[in-house]
Amino acid sequence: MSFEVGPKTINNVRRHKERASYDYESVHRALDEGLLGHVGFCLEDEDGESTPVVIPMVYGRKDNFLYLHGYVSGRLVKHLAKGKKVSMAVTELNGLVLALSPFHHSVNYRSVVVFGRGELVEEPEERLEALQIITDHMVKGRWDQCRDSTKIELQTTKVIRVEIESASVKESNNKEPNDDPADYKDLALCESTWSGVVSFFTNTIHG
Amino acid sequence: MSFEVGPKTINNVRRHKERASYDYESVHRALDEGLLGHVGFCLEDEDGESTPVVIPMVYGRKDNFLYLHGYVSGRLVKHLAKGKKVSMAVTELNGLVLALSPFHHSVNYRSVVVFGRGELVEEPEERLEALQIITDHMVKGRWDQCRDSTKIELQTTKVIRVEIESASVKESNNKEPNDDPADYKDLALCESTWSGVVSFFTNTIHG
Repeated sequence: MSFEVGPKTINNVRRHKERASYDYESVHRALDEGLLGHVGFCLEDEDGESTPVVIPMVYGRKDNFLYLHGYVSGRLVKHLAKGKKVSMAVTELNGLVLALSPFHHSVNYRSVVVFGRGELVEEPEERLEALQIITDHMVKGRWDQCRDSTKIELQTTKVIRVEIESASVKESNNKEPNDDPADYKDLALCESTWSGVVSFFTNTIHG
Repeated sequence: MSFEVGPKTINNVRRHKERASYDYESVHRALDEGLLGHVGFCLEDEDGESTPVVIPMVYGRKDNFLYLHGYVSGRLVKHLAKGKKVSMAVTELNGLVLALSPFHHSVNYRSVVVFGRGELVEEPEERLEALQIITDHMVKGRWDQCRDSTKIELQTTKVIRVEIESASVKESNNKEPNDDPADYKDLALCESTWSGVVSFFTNTIHG
């Protein structure tokens, strides 16, 4: 199964289309192998203009649902509990691609961007399962190692469910610099400028 | 100098206020020591609702200005060139804080979130300087090692300047788990559950 994509859909990758995937499996895998999401939402101003806000958060996924959690009075959870639209990006930065020209500099990465609407999870069993999913996403099996959550802990934590309505993965890994052929023939430039990839340890914790 | 903060300002950190900083120096340093930003903006829908979009990007900073760049026809740069509002978060994830209770699980991190409006940089000298700042933010001194940019390369790259109007840094590092005193007295729990910090290599490249 794949997310719908076309010239007018929000998930349409316009630049470097060959790097894009839209299938559920790629989207879900990129979410599962990441750890930190950057969640974006739009606060409506009095004058009708929207202010974007981006906040880093941990998260969890089950099926095609994303789970977020936060303190009961937090701005993000209160906003998303009203059914507002949300976007979240998770990015693995894997290396610097250093070329001979500034223009061809790049990074090796995999990123996933998802879109949907928030929904407050009120049903106690789903809330508890969502908190387990978020905790186990940090460390597999962690929930069962911990003590049970208390009533007060559960009361002060809100859980938001986001059905993923649209999404894309963009990946460019194991790429070498892609300089202009003429530059590779410029021996003085090639001798004076180091080019290649500076690889990082990946941010992936489990996968 | 500090960014204005109050109960109604967008940068107001409500939860764990003791972790927040609003001074220019802390904001600029967190930007400079990061590498990857997550940029959020709001696309206006036909029905008046806004759709948030979050995209990972490299960036550069000079004084209190943030510079972003992108392909000439890219959605983000076209949107921001119209003077639209933008938010960007940069997050360093430094470790997992694993507690005895799921509720006290946390991460060690530093994050900075900035707010402003996009503006297209049209003046050729500032454009070139901004591209140098973005390139040198990847690797210090890199611009001068590379060949000069061609006219076509410069024509196909748009540069956006964002004056940082509001911002906050939130930092929680070197923190041990903060479990309830009663849990530390539960010897069976303490024996069966490992708690402590799993530290990562930091994402900071230079600082």
